[in-house]
Amino acid sequence: MSKKKIFNDPVYGFIGVPYGILFDLIEHPYFQRLRRIKQVGLTHYVYPGALHTRFHHALGALHLMHEAIEVLRSKDVEITEKEAEAVNIAILLHDIGHGPFSHALENLLIKIHHEDLSILFMEELNEIFEGKLSMAIQIFKNEYPKPFLYQLVSGQLDMDRLDYLNRDSFFTGVSEGVIGYDRIIKMLDVRDGNLVVEEKGIYSIEKFLIARRLMYWQVYLHKTVLAAEQMLIKAVKRIKELHEMGKPLILSPALSYFFNQSLTSQDFKNSRKQVLDQFAKLDDVDVIMALKDNLENEDLVLSFLAKSIINRELFKIELKNIPFERDYIQKMRQKLTNEIGPMGNELEHLIFGGTESNNEYSILKDEIRILFKNGKTVPMSEASDREIHSKIITKYYLCYPKIIC
Amino acid sequence: MSKKKIFNDPVYGFIGVPYGILFDLIEHPYFQRLRRIKQVGLTHYVYPGALHTRFHHALGALHLMHEAIEVLRSKDVEITEKEAEAVNIAILLHDIGHGPFSHALENLLIKIHHEDLSILFMEELNEIFEGKLSMAIQIFKNEYPKPFLYQLVSGQLDMDRLDYLNRDSFFTGVSEGVIGYDRIIKMLDVRDGNLVVEEKGIYSIEKFLIARRLMYWQVYLHKTVLAAEQMLIKAVKRIKELHEMGKPLILSPALSYFFNQSLTSQDFKNSRKQVLDQFAKLDDVDVIMALKDNLENEDLVLSFLAKSIINRELFKIELKNIPFERDYIQKMRQKLTNEIGPMGNELEHLIFGGTESNNEYSILKDEIRILFKNGKTVPMSEASDREIHSKIITKYYLCYPKIIC
Amino acid sequence: MSKKKIFNDPVYGFIGVPYGILFDLIEHPYFQRLRRIKQVGLTHYVYPGALHTRFHHALGALHLMHEAIEVLRSKDVEITEKEAEAVNIAILLHDIGHGPFSHALENLLIKIHHEDLSILFMEELNEIFEGKLSMAIQIFKNEYPKPFLYQLVSGQLDMDRLDYLNRDSFFTGVSEGVIGYDRIIKMLDVRDGNLVVEEKGIYSIEKFLIARRLMYWQVYLHKTVLAAEQMLIKAVKRIKELHEMGKPLILSPALSYFFNQSLTSQDFKNSRKQVLDQFAKLDDVDVIMALKDNLENEDLVLSFLAKSIINRELFKIELKNIPFERDYIQKMRQKLTNEIGPMGNELEHLIFGGTESNNEYSILKDEIRILFKNGKTVPMSEASDREIHSKIITKYYLCYPKIIC
Amino acid sequence: MSKKKIFNDPVYGFIGVPYGILFDLIEHPYFQRLRRIKQVGLTHYVYPGALHTRFHHALGALHLMHEAIEVLRSKDVEITEKEAEAVNIAILLHDIGHGPFSHALENLLIKIHHEDLSILFMEELNEIFEGKLSMAIQIFKNEYPKPFLYQLVSGQLDMDRLDYLNRDSFFTGVSEGVIGYDRIIKMLDVRDGNLVVEEKGIYSIEKFLIARRLMYWQVYLHKTVLAAEQMLIKAVKRIKELHEMGKPLILSPALSYFFNQSLTSQDFKNSRKQVLDQFAKLDDVDVIMALKDNLENEDLVLSFLAKSIINRELFKIELKNIPFERDYIQKMRQKLTNEIGPMGNELEHLIFGGTESNNEYSILKDEIRILFKNGKTVPMSEASDREIHSKIITKYYLCYPKIIC
Repeated sequence: MSKKKIFNDPVYGFIGVPYGILFDLIEHPYFQRLRRIKQVGLTHYVYPGALHTRFHHALGALHLMHEAIEVLRSKDVEITEKEAEAVNIAILLHDIGHGPFSHALENLLIKIHHEDLSILFMEELNEIFEGKLSMAIQIFKNEYPKPFLYQLVSGQLDMDRLDYLNRDSFFTGVSEGVIGYDRIIKMLDVRDGNLVVEEKGIYSIEKFLIARRLMYWQVYLHKTVLAAEQMLIKAVKRIKELHEMGKPLILSPALSYFFNQSLTSQDFKNSRKQVLDQFAKLDDVDVIMALKDNLENEDLVLSFLAKSIINRELFKIELKNIPFERDYIQKMRQKLTNEIGPMGNELEHLIFGGTESNNEYSILKDEIRILFKNGKTVPMSEASDREIHSKIITKYYLCYPKIIC
Repeated sequence: MSKKKIFNDPVYGFIGVPYGILFDLIEHPYFQRLRRIKQVGLTHYVYPGALHTRFHHALGALHLMHEAIEVLRSKDVEITEKEAEAVNIAILLHDIGHGPFSHALENLLIKIHHEDLSILFMEELNEIFEGKLSMAIQIFKNEYPKPFLYQLVSGQLDMDRLDYLNRDSFFTGVSEGVIGYDRIIKMLDVRDGNLVVEEKGIYSIEKFLIARRLMYWQVYLHKTVLAAEQMLIKAVKRIKELHEMGKPLILSPALSYFFNQSLTSQDFKNSRKQVLDQFAKLDDVDVIMALKDNLENEDLVLSFLAKSIINRELFKIELKNIPFERDYIQKMRQKLTNEIGPMGNELEHLIFGGTESNNEYSILKDEIRILFKNGKTVPMSEASDREIHSKIITKYYLCYPKIIC
Repeated sequence: MSKKKIFNDPVYGFIGVPYGILFDLIEHPYFQRLRRIKQVGLTHYVYPGALHTRFHHALGALHLMHEAIEVLRSKDVEITEKEAEAVNIAILLHDIGHGPFSHALENLLIKIHHEDLSILFMEELNEIFEGKLSMAIQIFKNEYPKPFLYQLVSGQLDMDRLDYLNRDSFFTGVSEGVIGYDRIIKMLDVRDGNLVVEEKGIYSIEKFLIARRLMYWQVYLHKTVLAAEQMLIKAVKRIKELHEMGKPLILSPALSYFFNQSLTSQDFKNSRKQVLDQFAKLDDVDVIMALKDNLENEDLVLSFLAKSIINRELFKIELKNIPFERDYIQKMRQKLTNEIGPMGNELEHLIFGGTESNNEYSILKDEIRILFKNGKTVPMSEASDREIHSKIITKYYLCYPKIIC
Repeated sequence: MSKKKIFNDPVYGFIGVPYGILFDLIEHPYFQRLRRIKQVGLTHYVYPGALHTRFHHALGALHLMHEAIEVLRSKDVEITEKEAEAVNIAILLHDIGHGPFSHALENLLIKIHHEDLSILFMEELNEIFEGKLSMAIQIFKNEYPKPFLYQLVSGQLDMDRLDYLNRDSFFTGVSEGVIGYDRIIKMLDVRDGNLVVEEKGIYSIEKFLIARRLMYWQVYLHKTVLAAEQMLIKAVKRIKELHEMGKPLILSPALSYFFNQSLTSQDFKNSRKQVLDQFAKLDDVDVIMALKDNLENEDLVLSFLAKSIINRELFKIELKNIPFERDYIQKMRQKLTNEIGPMGNELEHLIFGGTESNNEYSILKDEIRILFKNGKTVPMSEASDREIHSKIITKYYLCYPKIIC
């Protein structure tokens, strides 16, 4: 009989997980919680298939890691059994620190970065599993002597990225994001302890860079998705304000807990288990329920935002290459006041602007390195016959209810 | 510029919806609510990709209907513009009456069948849209003179079924359920007002019947899915009991509303708009939140069930071809009592049995009819060189917590 | 750098072949010749994508064998490195004895079965490769002590069959033939030296049996394919007759060689290398060229058949469940005589009948065995809740030129 | 019953062709001949699945044209029934003038460009079909008043290109070439009589341009494909030389015909039917057979090249950014002379160089135009936030037998 638990996955067919520590980690409530955190937040408002979760993504990244290890070993890269397990654990748990709606609400609920939270979860689990995660934590923190193991978890071509591009592309149906992940993995190798890509894979890499860029503009930074997420942020901010003002609100116990106290990074460290247990109760459901429960809240801003999000009556979003003029914003505010009555600062929750940029996706700090047949490695930007960095583009947006269009 | 709204769909690529009544119906909060009702409930506990919603399914079925109309018209079947719109509306709204977790909780929250609720929603929308849904309602109730239109919405080969088999197969990753939906649709024709299938399509139909059967055993009646759904039913029953006993509970306003009053079919008719508005607030989120909010409830049965579902610590399920013996059940109950302390009738929420059967899927009341080149039509069972009815199989199951395994 | 040669394959993505004996065998002209033998003969006249070759199929079967070995080893089935190589060689070369248009022309050009020819080729290659194929030949002849190795090459669930169903389905575009090959392979195990399938795979096996049956009726025994192949047989027979009568013909040297002498199985054994070298020069190209070169042949039967095949003016084919009546056939012959002038026995090349049957695909001599969790194995027919043998069906056909329709 | 003939196609599922002129053209021997001309010549020596033919490609392009017409009409672009038929005919026949191995042998067998031959074929068919192709010919020559119809057949985004990128990508298995053809088609519109793309499609266009570029480097200009094709050219040149010298050769009648006379464009016009009928007998089979029939030819150059191609013992190819030095080439020639004996000019058939360039694919004469929401159209290079022209790259290659490596 099989020694593996097999998960069906529409993306890769099957994902096999050996019984043992990896399977036990998946079974743990801390990890099961990721079943209730969508990978791409409200993106399904634009791409209705994009309901996949961080749970599924973590399994997918684990699957790719398994393939990568096999490929590297076949090229005589030494990876011990223990290291293989550790790097598998590291990729499985790389996103375990994500809260509800991941990036969007990251700084609103708690003041701690999700990667730091992932480390705290790993450390807690390391206690539960009696030290079996120590090497995985070392790798995750890039403190392990073989840097390519870290690079497989977090680098220009890590298994995280290969899976999420692939998976997001699959579930959104945006074929522009399809990447030749299997070919890329087959071309991986290690030189001087670092991950490199064989020369033959250069076009796959180029395609990968383009696909990533197209996914940003077509999915991750899609203007309607942006509008929906900004509305969600405003709604949660308003809930927080009302909570602080002691106004009536219906909130889940877990949500109340985090609004009642401003936990710092230090609090997480001092009372790790207690705080993590609370945090582990939070997921997308609490946030959506908070909107649904407050559809009729007496605060006009909150009920307006909640209804708009729940019924998908999304705000209009305008995009420009230069900042919006003060006068124009003022005019729109006046229009809205005329429409729904005078408001104070709350107006800023209903008409708001900001910038979006592909900045962080354009600059490749640690460039992918290409391995030529003569044994030399060269950074991708030199190896390609094409300009691979795309311009950094910043766009200014302004969001407001459609009733004043 | 396009006169259509285009939805990305990983299953069919794109789904185009013309601006007009169909698009307006999709925008209505009654319909948007289907975004929060999963097509196959807790199936994602076994197949993690199966998070797709009734919203997406309804769009998919609409897409197939559009193709079917085009095929039939190309074969000189008369379908007027008005009829095409009506049958499109009927398929779009066919599932609008589904409540949270669809079939599983159907009789627990309200005593009315989801199809009747769909009709009530359509009638309400017909008022809002000033009579534009009248013909769609006629078709949906099979009161329209061209029976094939009804059969496209609800029959052996309706667009509902073609889409859900296809979509469920896609998102679960169970390739056994893949059907040649495009070929089947291309083979449709009408004779004497009824839908028939051209002879050339006979193997596709056979494959379709098999695929449906395999999907039942591998997905819809999968034993772990069955266990999860039965646990959910027990949990909601327990919530209802506790609510009736006046015990402390955290529930969403919408859920409370339906537990506070036992609404009959008559109530829905008498105060249609008011009750539908309440019902439209209910979805999967309320139910999952009710479990999360009561994880620490002082009632042991509820907190035990809630934790087990939320953390996916699913009950063991045994399946047999004959009923379980009373003694065996008694023994298991004793074991559980020893484990978690003495209980009364509540025990029945933690150890429970029942039967499952592929009954309803085996008997084809209205058989698919095959159209031969000589112009004659013959029922599928005569046209095929193969026994197409599968045996009706009934299995007995017993569910209990794994702590007593 | 990779130690594998990687082939792109639209079916599986990539097929890796380790450098060494397997790669050297692929490079050998005997094997390269399979690039010019289509897997499914004239099927592309009905399914235009079906141009794939025995070369590609052999690589695909090799790929699946690699996966099967990995799965079995993960379940503690012992397969030594030498055995793995041998079974890989056996599957790679299983079809090397196929001549042009495989089954269709098998008995016309030479009087020896393609499997016996495969063995002769293997023996010749074994000399060239200094004995490295000995164990592969033992396995191929089922003379090796571990019968499951033979069953992986030639059995109810061999890698040959899994690949050809999959590949033929892919290139024809007949989705009815899609099988869950990866799931089936993941469910393989060995008990008492024989290949078995884990209980969980039972539905995949059922789907596989159905898919195979549908592929027979929709592809392999498709009536138009049947007509085309019978026409090809008649044309080659006519070429042979004319050649024996010393009539003028344009033929390739290799084709002439085999028409000049009626080689027996014994001849192949006596002068193996010489005859194989000649045989290895024969492929689909010789046959198609023979038709093209004789389009204007003075023999009316040959030129008529050649033109009909090359220009795809396929004969009409009638199918019935009972034999055609003598009178009817006589009438059609008269009609054809009226149309193209009086003929003698040659008429039998232009109006001809026969039977087709799914016989060989219905009877499962060596039944697939299912392995239950309790460790028992049971034949598929007992394990399934469904009648799995389909009726044996024999159909009578009559073929004739469309000019007399 | 269906009024359409349906072809199975693994790329699009089904291709429907209405009975009538289009179907009759497909049935004509001139068109059926395309079944024996591979779309991408010897590319299958590198990508074994790439055996698809110009026949299949023409059907695919027809399918896309059908979709494009439907999309444009839905946006109120006027296309009459007669125009729709004409543009369908034009795309169906756009490649009918291709000879064996298309581009590779184009100037060797006849001195006329394949597009001019396509026009001659269309004119001949126009006579046979009594003038029904006149408008199609006008469109094909860009002499019809609605230029967008010509652009659909031959332009930056024509259905030819969309199909071949898609199809070549599918059959090679090179996922880097996958394009969102359905999305691109859905975004087409017409302004001032010219084809434009809606703003929303800009990323799909960008992806399309990249995919095309990647396909050139990974498939069309793949170095091993290049080596194989150059070897084929040399072999055919050698056959021609030997034929002119009156040396013994086995050639098909059709091949002899074209080697016996150097037909000019004028000859084709003067005796159109006669020459086209001869040309229509030529296809890939004649060329491959010529190699097979002359494997033992007494001319060493020919037999060496023929064996090398047939057994896939491809020449080594070196690629550099600067020309190879005279000395180096001289040295390699000497080596080869040492190996196989002294030769005269024939040596140039066995050691040869040249250049390859992506030139023709980099310069976009007629730029794709993007239609913005404000109604303005802008060329792609201005609309995109990215440099879209890739550098023109020229590489020098040198080919020689591996025996001197």
